[in-house]
This record gives sequence, structure tokens and C-alpha cells, in this order.
Amino acid sequence: MSIRLSEIQDPLCDDRMEQKEHETLSEERSGIPSQKERLFLHRNAVSQNFSVNTSNKDIVDGNISVVEEHLPETSPEDENAVEMVVPSRSSSDEPQELVFATGSGSTSSCNQLGNSIFYSSAVPADSVPQDERGELNILSAEYESLDYDTCINSVWLDEERTRGYKFITKKDAARWLVVMITGILTALVACVIDITIESLSKFKYTWLQHNTNKYVTKNLAIPYFLWGALNIGPVLVAAFLGSYVEPLSAGSGIPQVKCYLNGVKVPRVVRIKTLLSKAVGVTMSVLGGLAVGKEGPMIHSGAVIAAGVSQGKTTSFNKDFGFFEYFREDHEKRDFVSAGAAAGVSAAFGAPVGGVLFSLEEGASFWNQSLTWRVFFGAMVSSFTLNLVLSAYNGVPGQLTYTGLLNFGAFDDLTYQIWEFIPFILMGILGGLLGALYNYINYRLTVFRMRYVQQPWRKIIEAVIVAFFTATIGFFMIYFVNDCRRASEDQNTLYPIQMFCDEGDENAVASIWFQTPEQSVRSLFHAKADAYKWQTISVFFVCYFILACWTYGLGVPAGLFIPTLLTGAAWGRLVGMLIHLLFPSEGWADEGKYALVGAAAMLGGVVRMTLSLTVILMECTGNITFGLPLMIVLMVAKWVGDYFNEGLYDIHIQMSGVPIMAWEAPPLSNNIYASEVMNRPVISLQCVEKVSRIVEVLKQCTYNGFPVVDQFPEGDDAIYFKSFGKLRGIILRSQLVVLLKNKVFNENAEVWQEGKVDIHLFRKAYPRYYQLHQVNLDEEDMNKTVDLKPFMNPSPYNIISCTALPRVFSLFRALGLRHLVICNDANEVVGMVTRKDLVKYRVWKHRGQMGLEELAIYNRV
Amino acid sequence: MSIRLSEIQDPLCDDRMEQKEHETLSEERSGIPSQKERLFLHRNAVSQNFSVNTSNKDIVDGNISVVEEHLPETSPEDENAVEMVVPSRSSSDEPQELVFATGSGSTSSCNQLGNSIFYSSAVPADSVPQDERGELNILSAEYESLDYDTCINSVWLDEERTRGYKFITKKDAARWLVVMITGILTALVACVIDITIESLSKFKYTWLQHNTNKYVTKNLAIPYFLWGALNIGPVLVAAFLGSYVEPLSAGSGIPQVKCYLNGVKVPRVVRIKTLLSKAVGVTMSVLGGLAVGKEGPMIHSGAVIAAGVSQGKTTSFNKDFGFFEYFREDHEKRDFVSAGAAAGVSAAFGAPVGGVLFSLEEGASFWNQSLTWRVFFGAMVSSFTLNLVLSAYNGVPGQLTYTGLLNFGAFDDLTYQIWEFIPFILMGILGGLLGALYNYINYRLTVFRMRYVQQPWRKIIEAVIVAFFTATIGFFMIYFVNDCRRASEDQNTLYPIQMFCDEGDENAVASIWFQTPEQSVRSLFHAKADAYKWQTISVFFVCYFILACWTYGLGVPAGLFIPTLLTGAAWGRLVGMLIHLLFPSEGWADEGKYALVGAAAMLGGVVRMTLSLTVILMECTGNITFGLPLMIVLMVAKWVGDYFNEGLYDIHIQMSGVPIMAWEAPPLSNNIYASEVMNRPVISLQCVEKVSRIVEVLKQCTYNGFPVVDQFPEGDDAIYFKSFGKLRGIILRSQLVVLLKNKVFNENAEVWQEGKVDIHLFRKAYPRYYQLHQVNLDEEDMNKTVDLKPFMNPSPYNIISCTALPRVFSLFRALGLRHLVICNDANEVVGMVTRKDLVKYRVWKHRGQMGLEELAIYNRV
Repeated sequence: MSIRLSEIQDPLCDDRMEQKEHETLSEERSGIPSQKERLFLHRNAVSQNFSVNTSNKDIVDGNISVVEEHLPETSPEDENAVEMVVPSRSSSDEPQELVFATGSGSTSSCNQLGNSIFYSSAVPADSVPQDERGELNILSAEYESLDYDTCINSVWLDEERTRGYKFITKKDAARWLVVMITGILTALVACVIDITIESLSKFKYTWLQHNTNKYVTKNLAIPYFLWGALNIGPVLVAAFLGSYVEPLSAGSGIPQVKCYLNGVKVPRVVRIKTLLSKAVGVTMSVLGGLAVGKEGPMIHSGAVIAAGVSQGKTTSFNKDFGFFEYFREDHEKRDFVSAGAAAGVSAAFGAPVGGVLFSLEEGASFWNQSLTWRVFFGAMVSSFTLNLVLSAYNGVPGQLTYTGLLNFGAFDDLTYQIWEFIPFILMGILGGLLGALYNYINYRLTVFRMRYVQQPWRKIIEAVIVAFFTATIGFFMIYFVNDCRRASEDQNTLYPIQMFCDEGDENAVASIWFQTPEQSVRSLFHAKADAYKWQTISVFFVCYFILACWTYGLGVPAGLFIPTLLTGAAWGRLVGMLIHLLFPSEGWADEGKYALVGAAAMLGGVVRMTLSLTVILMECTGNITFGLPLMIVLMVAKWVGDYFNEGLYDIHIQMSGVPIMAWEAPPLSNNIYASEVMNRPVISLQCVEKVSRIVEVLKQCTYNGFPVVDQFPEGDDAIYFKSFGKLRGIILRSQLVVLLKNKVFNENAEVWQEGKVDIHLFRKAYPRYYQLHQVNLDEEDMNKTVDLKPFMNPSPYNIISCTALPRVFSLFRALGLRHLVICNDANEVVGMVTRKDLVKYRVWKHRGQMGLEELAIYNRV
Repeated sequence: MSIRLSEIQDPLCDDRMEQKEHETLSEERSGIPSQKERLFLHRNAVSQNFSVNTSNKDIVDGNISVVEEHLPETSPEDENAVEMVVPSRSSSDEPQELVFATGSGSTSSCNQLGNSIFYSSAVPADSVPQDERGELNILSAEYESLDYDTCINSVWLDEERTRGYKFITKKDAARWLVVMITGILTALVACVIDITIESLSKFKYTWLQHNTNKYVTKNLAIPYFLWGALNIGPVLVAAFLGSYVEPLSAGSGIPQVKCYLNGVKVPRVVRIKTLLSKAVGVTMSVLGGLAVGKEGPMIHSGAVIAAGVSQGKTTSFNKDFGFFEYFREDHEKRDFVSAGAAAGVSAAFGAPVGGVLFSLEEGASFWNQSLTWRVFFGAMVSSFTLNLVLSAYNGVPGQLTYTGLLNFGAFDDLTYQIWEFIPFILMGILGGLLGALYNYINYRLTVFRMRYVQQPWRKIIEAVIVAFFTATIGFFMIYFVNDCRRASEDQNTLYPIQMFCDEGDENAVASIWFQTPEQSVRSLFHAKADAYKWQTISVFFVCYFILACWTYGLGVPAGLFIPTLLTGAAWGRLVGMLIHLLFPSEGWADEGKYALVGAAAMLGGVVRMTLSLTVILMECTGNITFGLPLMIVLMVAKWVGDYFNEGLYDIHIQMSGVPIMAWEAPPLSNNIYASEVMNRPVISLQCVEKVSRIVEVLKQCTYNGFPVVDQFPEGDDAIYFKSFGKLRGIILRSQLVVLLKNKVFNENAEVWQEGKVDIHLFRKAYPRYYQLHQVNLDEEDMNKTVDLKPFMNPSPYNIISCTALPRVFSLFRALGLRHLVICNDANEVVGMVTRKDLVKYRVWKHRGQMGLEELAIYNRV
């Protein structure tokens, strides 16, 4: 619950409050009238035409004076309304249940313990009603921030000081080792996925080819149903993995990785189980002939591998190898995950520099040079390993420059003329429009899915339908579209079928369908001029646009890059055909080149990345000179698309309510103060606290961080005017539970040997800290005390309550904070700000307008 | 002057002090023995073997407990020693001089005004004695930080609120426009430099060629002296520019740009005068045949152009165009400069992605996605413009993919075998060793120069000597080394001379010397096998190594990249010859490829960048597949080089004493607290302050930021135990002078029209704020008062005095701070930390050891 600034007794903020409320300035100090009076008088006039609506986007024009208007006035009724169970502090002296129910229930309200004053902060609605699911302006309370800000407490310092420089050097060397292993493993996983898909596809399409050729004049229903069955089989496996085994493995994984790199603790995102489900699932999805790619899942795989290797233990298999124990904290883990994601991009596209830029573009909040080098090293190792294995597989062992290793084949001679920028820019605009349309359709579809396709079995049925529908579309296109060509016109056709063509000819449509989407992209990029009729490509574009749109968001692991590229390559090639028709004798009028531009435009319009995509496309076509047009096309597509909606990843992130932080504070938010966004009351703990109170706090609250204060202030007559004690540090829920679990009580001091209460206690529990109900405490324990000082973070970042929002935002963003304590000018705790308090004000800029919306917070989405 | 923690009365820090001083913990709160006693007892044992020496690097092994030991104990003698003139506060009531002497003199000591207590913080030595110049462990007090943290004061808010969203949108559009103009102008400047050098070189070498051929059998002294004269002439111009006109334009400019991007205000670094001197100077240096490149200066040019365009005014020519007035602050300017530097790299090497990475690698403290896009856009525009102009110049207008546009020529077929990584890594090691040697020699030479070649005329004489010596070496090599070849063996030879060779042959040595260094690099990369004898290359390598080493640091504008690449290409080609000899029939045993690897290794060994160099080399050879070996070579060279010393740019930065911030706090510094590095006493101002006191403070202090406090605390009996008032904000010297200059006094309130005291007052004065002596105040004015509140930064970042150094460091680094106020736990000012307080502790890691050194601070270097 946010309260008005004026209700906090904070002399430091008084003046600014006065300014804000347009009162004249106090003249007491100078004894003469100040010119500030005049300075601030005209403000009132311009800060009126403002509205914020929590459920709909309102177009806001002109000037705003944010937040104040829509914050609930604190009134006694409010307090009473949310008043809750009243266990007084003395209740801890009464007999306690020895095993507690879980402390992290669904209620987020919290009682003020220890001061006999009980009311609650604003209670989020429990869950979005089914038929309202799919709104974009929601936040889910279930996502926590990572503890990126390392807690440098006494036990941490103890380790550092006893182990000295050698430990620093060892850690540093270990980091390089972890990154190297990550790179190698990521590449190997990518190779296994790659080779499995290729081998099984070969089997599948050879069989289909054989059957089609055999039954073409007899009964085409046989190959049709065979195709359908061969699609449904693998997709069933993929859908089972993505629905029952690990729902998080469904989709591309890039949104999840993006959230994680942004600092959000996405549950289970870096588990080995997720990796396995993802790797097998994506192999099956691609094999099932769906309009999916394997690149996104490979990036996710890299992230999981990095997390796994760096932690030296797996929670999925409950095995602790004891390696790299000192990396068991969120800060180190997130840094490794960013290296893993880069290695993933590198393995997926053979684009190490693109990988580094991907990590930078998606993940960097505070980027460090030595981290950049490690990320680059990991990406290079990954690319090297991948090339080594694939070159051996392709029969040219050790030939790392073999052009067959490029995903989309080498473009050797991409020349262009200066005036070609005109069609390029027009294609960028078209890509932006199509991308925005794609995103809109997929958004509506996802809303439908969130409302009506939630149960796993429904998801599986939908996947099966899509799989069969894909086969049907392909089959009917091959059947009805009459496009024959000489077999030599496209070297990339692997499984040519003759169908109704003349002897020696092949069916051009089948050449697109009888292979994986990635190979189809290659075909469209490199097939000779006139390899396809324009009718073929047109029909294919429409069908594939619909298919790709329908497929993304299905309950199977599925990448977005390749289907988008393929759709774009299709219409790009159409443009190329037109230009080739107009300038038949010009060398630069190359259909393949325009297919590449179309693919870039489409990708830019859908995902809206620019820098990393440019480099990825440059690297995976092996051509640098074409970087400039690619970049311009991607930029234009992004601008045009942004006019209408967000990128597809962002839409999915917003729908799942992940509190992802923007790069900058909302504009015009300098007149919002920390006191207006902070949470109050704050549950604070004393430096030496009774076990019973800690247990009670953990039971009653879902908060994850508690300020540690000197001692509770006396008197509780007016809660709004009081602080919650002089700040001495901050301690996390997870740390408290470890302390309780291990009974690190002052009274047990003699039981503890020297050095036994050290940082290993906490590392052992990371990352799945105990729940409160796993802690067994008897009545005697409850009367003991815990000294929190050696374990708390003794110098948490804190700011004064009249700090402007952008400064709060910068602190959070640049330092990766989870909790920020708000103090009054005597350094006493008056509130807490967490990620969600900042993220709930979101700016949007569409259709030439700009506005601020406040998101609704739910416990579940 | 730093004081011991224990001397500050700060209950919050008491406990941690106790821990630190190994006292037993107070048991007063819990009443029972705490287990912390045991926890911290063993610390004492491990924190002893420590030494820090301010003048020499001491090898520190094992564990340290830093700083405490070498900080001067505060004693009354100290205080007395630095006690200064004692103008009491009441002196302001006495008649004042109406025009003041400059406030920013050479003394950095500061009196505590207004509290009748006068002593000073540690006085830095005035200047380094001449025969001690060139130490690496110094800091110069003359460098200030940029105000990267925008001061969001009331006048700033006023503008934002009155102008609203439209202003935000307009600013955003203007940013893109500025970046685009910067890109275009940078490219045009690069083109002019490029084309001028090419045209004049053509003239020079044609003349030389003609004369050599003419006099070869008659009198070779004529071409020799002609060569000498043709070298000396242009070099004289360059040296004049670099010595008399603008000394800052000497050198490559990359160190200065790096410092600026790091957040240091390097005086005159982004002036138009510097740009002109640099552009003309580098053209002349290259034309003068020196071992220099034009790339570094081009990067500097880009930075200057960005600063100039974004400010819409030039201080060099004292002209204000009135454009982009809202970008007149350090934050915006630094962001534009990073875009300009990227555009510069892009123009110098045709490497837009490399440019972005250069800015990231060198400059990013807090990197923002939208900024990255703008930087990339600027780099792309620059690359596009450059290609457009150069393709027209080369007779293929609009053909942007013309391979002649690549700096080092296109490598079409760089294939390599897996086992070739062995020679690559060995070459990386060699490159690291040679680079470290190069850096060492250049360092010793620069020390000599700082001591004995300081006067401009001496610099000019040295430059002339080097110019003539270069011609001499070239001439003698051509004369003595007998290396003839068929004219067809190297297509890159522009001015072949026959010398003593047979008819139809050409002298291979002359082909290297009779062209610019950049063309020589191209020759070594692309000449056919056996185009040079190994003796030729060996002699050339030795000579050029010495020449390049001697030339860098000369008082002329001169880039480092090309001579380093050329040196590396020479020994790389030697390795290539050896391999070609061993495997004569293998296609991959290409001499040019090994020349490229050698060039990369040498460059990596000298400058120690990895990520951006890899991409730059990839982009300017047009080859992606060779990125992996390049990266590995650069990485190995960096590691080997770092074993011995720093990169050359860093050495030069250290010698000039620029307080550049590292990426991370020193290791093991978690037990250093802010109170130990902060400056005390602090000069604070009251919210409503008398003009006379402000004038006095500005006159007596050189500080640039003053905390604004509620009111001065009463009593001054024990200065160390008291604070300097409750923090309300911070105000800069520059702001105060503007207020005084414009007489924004409370008593003058009726004179000011509404809206006249606004942010424009401050922008108009940026970046060369008035000096105090430019302010005219009469006696009446001195008795008036100023209300500082609307102009101060009302929520400066502040931390509590017991915060550990790494957290202070993170704040500075991530947020680009200039001043950080240290408060006690009642939010009262107790100290100030600035960049130099953090930078003066520097970590070094060489020869497998690691240590911490404290730098000496001088007023001038």
C-alpha cells in the first residue's frame, strides 16, 4: 500500500512536498520572500490533463503528474478492511506447533508483528479469472528477483579473508574453465540435436519420397496418411514433454532466458530436466514437420548448461558434485547464464559475435569487461566445437571453414547498387507491417489458448491437430499447385519427387515441403532464378504465414527464428522475382538476395531486435559487405512494427506477467517520489531477535527480505508517522530459514565448533532453500535468540523517501537490486521498494502516442 | 585526509568496527554470549602479512588487510602543519574586494569555513619533479569527473513539466538526428584525410620513384636527400600542430577518448581546434613517411564531431548556433561521444560492428539498449557514407561492395586446418612477448621524453630527426638488401623501382618503403608466395619495430594500429615462409594468412583489446570464417602480454595520471570502509546561504561539489566527532558561480520575471562555466542571500560511512558519479568520496602475482 508523502514525518522532504502541493515556501530561514514562490507557481496549470487506468490503455496526451491521483487514499476504513488474524507478539510464548505449514502461501498480505498493529499492504487479486486471461497489463506476484547484489556479510568476508588472493585467482581461473566447458557442452548438445534431426528427417522424407513416387498414380491417400502419421508421432512426444513433463520447455525459451538475464527468478528455467525435455522435444517438433526451428531452444540449452556446470550440482537429479561451490549465488549464476546464452546463439547459428551481442542486447544491466571476454570466449569455444564435430560429420574433418557449416549457406557475391536501398527500405516497411500482423494474430491466439487450452491433454490434442494440418496443407499444395522444373535448378533439394511432372523433372513445391524448414530457407536463398513459379511461392507464403502463426505458442518446444525467416524468405523471393522480371539482365537482380532481405525484414518485424540479428545474419551467411542493408532493413522493420505493438517475445513476457524491467524509468516520472511507490508497513527484525518472532514473521508474511533494525521504536499510536527502526542491514527469508534449520541460536553457541557456522551452510542450501515447514523446532528453541548481524547484508543500498523515481530505477537497473530500503532522514526504515513496485508503471508508445499504464498485480497468471 | 573509522561517532558502525579491531562483541543486547566471538577470532591471524608502498610496487603475497596501516594517523601536528589563512566567517561583513582572483588555483587544500575551525585535507604535492616524471603510480589532481549523473533539480523539472511528452519525443528524435549527422561528418572527415593522403603520397612517391630511377647509376645522394626533405617537410607541419597549436592532438587520441568515455573530463579533448589540428596533423605525419597510421586520430575525430554537433556551439570559435541546447550536459554529451567514437572506428576501418564493440569495450559503464541502437546506427551511417564517397573516388560509384574499400584487401579463401591452431597459438605467445617488449621500450622512451623533451621546440627537433632517420633506414635497406622479383608478384606495389635489379624486375624492398604503411600491410597480406626474400623481411621487421616504437609518443598526431600491424605482418610473413617451406604443396600454407595472424598477435600484444579487435579485423578483411583463429591469437597475446605489463594505451594513461576507473573494485577490499577513503572535513553550504560565505568558499576551496545542509550543527569542540549538517542536496561549483554571476539572490526576487531563472541560465554557461573572477559583486550584494534549493541536486546518492569499498565502487562505476556524500546514521554529512579517492587504490597482476598499490596524487603531472 502506498501512502502519501505528507503522511511521513520526514523534515527533509517537507520542502519538496510543499513545492509539490503548490504551497508557498516557508520564509522562516531567510526572513525575506524567496523567488521560488514564483518559480513553482505555474506548475499547477500544466499537470492536470492526466489519467491512468489500470485495466485499459488510455491515450495520454500532453503533460502528466503521475500516480498521485490514482493511489488509494489511506483511510481508517481501508485499514479495517484488510485487518487480519491478530496473533500478538506474546503468542510466541505459548506452545507452538512444532512443524509449520508452508510459509509461502498464496496470500501476500502481511501482518505487522511485534508492534501490535496489524494491517496489510494492498492485497493482489488471487488469480486472473479464466475468461479474462491474456491481458497485457498484468503482473504476476509469483516471480521474484534474483539476488544479483551479493550479500557481503561477515561469513562471506570470513571466507575471503581466510583464503586471500589465491582464492580470488582460483575463482577467476574456475570461471574461465566453466565457460569453456559450457561452450563445449552447448555445442555438443546442439550437434546431437542437429545430427539427430538430420538423420531422422532423412529417414522420414526418404520413406515419404519413396511412397509418394510409388503411389502417385495409384492411391495418393497412402502417402498422405503416412505423412500425417509421421508428423503426428514425433509431435505427440514433443507435446507430451511440453505439457506433462516440463511445461516450461514449451516454446522457444528465449523469452524465459531474457527474463532471467533481466534479473527475474523464473522457476525451473535452468533445470536439467527442462534441458532434457527441451532438447528431445525440439528434435521431435522439427521432425514432426511443424513450422518450428531449433535455434531458440538451443539458446535456452546453453543457458541451462551454463547454470548446471557452474553450480556443480543438479537439483533435478538431486546430486551434488561439490564442484564450484563458490559460484552458488545468483550473481555468479546469472553471469554464467549470459555466457551460456551467448554460447547457445553461437552454436545455433555459428555466430559467436552475434551471441555476445545477443547477451548484451537482452541481458546486460551492468556489463563488465572481463565478463564480456569470458562470454566471447565461451561463444568462440562453442562455435569451434560445433564446427569441429559437424565438419567431421560432413566428411571434411578439421576443415573448419567448410561453407556447408553455415546455416543458410554461403552468399559469396552479394553485390548491391546504391539505389537498391529503395526496395530494401520498402521491404523493411512491409516486414514491419507483416510482423505486427503476425504478432497481433499470435497474441489473439495465445489469449484463446490461455483461456481454453490450459489442460495438458487439450494442448496435446491441439498439437496433434496442427501436425496433421501441416501435412495436409503440404500435401494439398503438392497436389494442386503445378510447378515442375529441371532437377538441376536447386542444388539444395534433398528428396526430389516427380509427382505429375515429366521424366527428369521434379515437383518444386515438394522440394520445399519435403525437408526441414531450415533447409527450405536455404533453398529459397540459393535456388537459381526461376526455380519456383510465383504462384507456388505466393500460396506457400500464405499457408506458411498461417501455420507459423498457429504453431508458435503450441505446447511443444519450438523456435521462432526459422519459420519467421522462411515466411520472410518466401515473400522476399517474390519481390526478387518481380525485380528480376523488370531487370532481367542485371547481375544484382538476384532472387536469393531479395529472399534474404525479406527474411531479415520479417524477423525484424516479429522479434524487433536489431544489433544482434544483423550480426547473426551476417555471420550465418558468411557475408560482411551485406551488413549495411540488413541493418537498415531490420531497423525500418522494427520502427514500423513498434508503431503497432511490441515484439513477439515481449508480448509473451507481458502476457505471463513477468515483471521485466525496462531500460529506463518512465518519462516525466521525476515528480514521483520513492515514498509514493514504496510498500508500507515494513516487517523489520531486530539485530538479536527471538526465534519465535522470526518463525511468526516467516509464517505470516510472504516477503523475502526483512530490514534488520537496531530495535523497535517505542509507541505505536500513529503508525503512519513512525518508522520501523534504525536500519542496520537486510536479511533474506532464505537466510533466516537456514539459520533456523541449523539452529544457529545464541544459546547453542557452545555446540558450534569454530568455523562451522560459515558460508557453506548457505551455499549448501542454494538454490532450493528449505521451506519453513521443513524446519523442526521444539518449544525450548522458540524461546532462544538469533544474532542476525553476521548473516545480514550490513550495508544494503538505501535511499531517502523523497528520492525521485528515475533515481530509484537507475539504482535497481544498474545494480540488479532485489530490495531497496527506503529511509527517512534519520536513517530509519519507512518503506521497501521491490522490482514489482517499479515495474508496475509501464510506458507504451504506439501509433505516435505515448502513455503510462499501471499494471494489475495477481498472485497467479 | 582520511580518518580512522573509530573516530566517527556513528553507532551504526560501532559493531563492525569492533569486529574489525578484534574486540569482543558487546553482549548487552542478548545478555548471553554470542557465537560471533568465535566467528571472528581467527581473523587477526591471517591479516598481517601485508605491505603497501606508495612509491614502488611491492609484491604482495597471501592475504592483506588493506589501507588501515598506511593511512596517516590524525594528530594535532598534522592539523597544525597544514593550517592556513584564517578568515573567520564574520570577515564577510567586512568590505570585500569586488573582483576576485581565480578560485581554482593550484592549492587543493580547503578551509573549514563558517565553523571557525580551519584545517585542511591532505595536500597533494604540487608537481612531479622533472627527473621523477614518468612514474606509473601517480594521479593528477587536474582531472575532474564528468557530471554523468544528471542533476534533476527544480529548474530541470520545471522544463520537463512545462514541455511534457512532446519535449521527450523531440529530444529523442533529435538524438537520432545528431547521431546521423555525426556519422556523415565523421565519414567525410575520414574521406578527406584518406584522399588527401593518397593524392599527396602519389605525388611524393612518383617524384621519388622518378628521381631514384634517374639517378640510380649517377648519384644516389640526390634521391636520398630528396626523400629526407619530403619526409621532414610534412612532419614539421605535424609537429608544429602537435606542439604549439594543440598539444592534445599529438598521439593517437584513443587514450584520451578512452578516458573521456570512462567519465574523466579531459580538458580540450573534444574541441574543434583539436579536431582540426589532429586531422591536418595526421595527414602530414602519414605523408611524412613516419611509422604511423591514421586510424586512431580518425576515432578521435569522430568523438570531437559528435560532441560538437550535439552541443550546437563551438567554444573554439566562440559561436553558439542555438541548436540542441537541451543536450548541453555531460550525460548527453558523453553518450554522443561514444556514438562518435564508434562512427570513427567505422570510418577508419569500415567496421561498424567493431565500432560498437569498441565503444562497449572501452566506454560502457552503464549501457542502455536504445543508446546501443543509436551508436550502431551512427556507425552504419558512417560506414555507408565512407563507402559511398570512396566508391565514387575509386571509379565505381554506388558499388558499395567493391572490395577495394576494405582497408587490408579482401581475403577470399582463408581456409585453415584444425592443427594449424598450434602455430597460431605459438604466434599468439610470440605476439604477446614482442608486444610486452614494445610496450616496455616505449615506456622507457616516454619517461625520457617526459623528463627531457618537454619544450615544444625540442619535440619538433625530435620529430624531424625521426623523419630523417626513417628515410635513412628506408634508403639504406633499398641500397644494401638485394631482393629482386618479377613485377607481377605483388599487385599492390604502386611505385615500383628497378634499382640494381634486372630489366623488368623490381626492387622488393622499395615496394614496402615507397608507399604508406597501410599499403605496405596490404602488400604483406596479399603478395604472392616468394614475393620477398626472408632476409628482406627480417631486416625490415627489426628496423620497423624500432621505428614504430620510437615514433609512438612523438609530438605529432599518430595512430598506433597500422605500424603495429605492419610489424606483426612482417614477422607473421616470416613464419608463413617457414611453413610454406615445410609444406610447399599445401594450399593452406599461405604466407599472407600467416602475415595476418602475426599482425593480429602483435596488435593484441601491444594494445590488449580482444573483442573489438577481432571484429574489426574480421570486418576489414571481409572474412568471417577466420574470426575464430584471430580471436584465439588475440586472447593468447593479451594473456602473455599481461603477464609482463599493461597495454600501451593504459601505460600512457597511467603516466599522465588520469584517474581512470577500473571495472571492479580491488579484490579483498571488502574490509575497507567508506569512512577510510573519504575526504574530511567537508565544506557544506546551508540551504539559504549568504553570498559572502559562498564567495569565500569558492575562493578558498578547489572542491567542485558542496553538500547543501539543513543548517550547521552547533558547537565545534571536537571536529572529528561532529557532522557537517543534515544532508539536503548537493550543489556544484559551476552552478554556484552561475547563480552569483546572474545575481539570483533572494533580495533581488522582484527583479526576476517569471521563468527567467530557469535551466537556460545554466545551459548557456555550459561547458566553460564562468570563473569566480568574472563575477562582479558589490558590497551590498555580499550581504544578500541565495536560496540553493531550486538549483541543487535534491537527492544525491549517499551512503553510510561503514559501507564497504566495493559497494561504493559499484555505485560510482554503474551510475557515473562525480561526488558521493558519506553520511552517518542520522543522515548527516561526515565526508565526501570522489573518483580519485577510489582510483588511488590500484590492483596490478603481473608475473603470476597480484598486489595493491596506492597512487601518489600531484597537482600537475
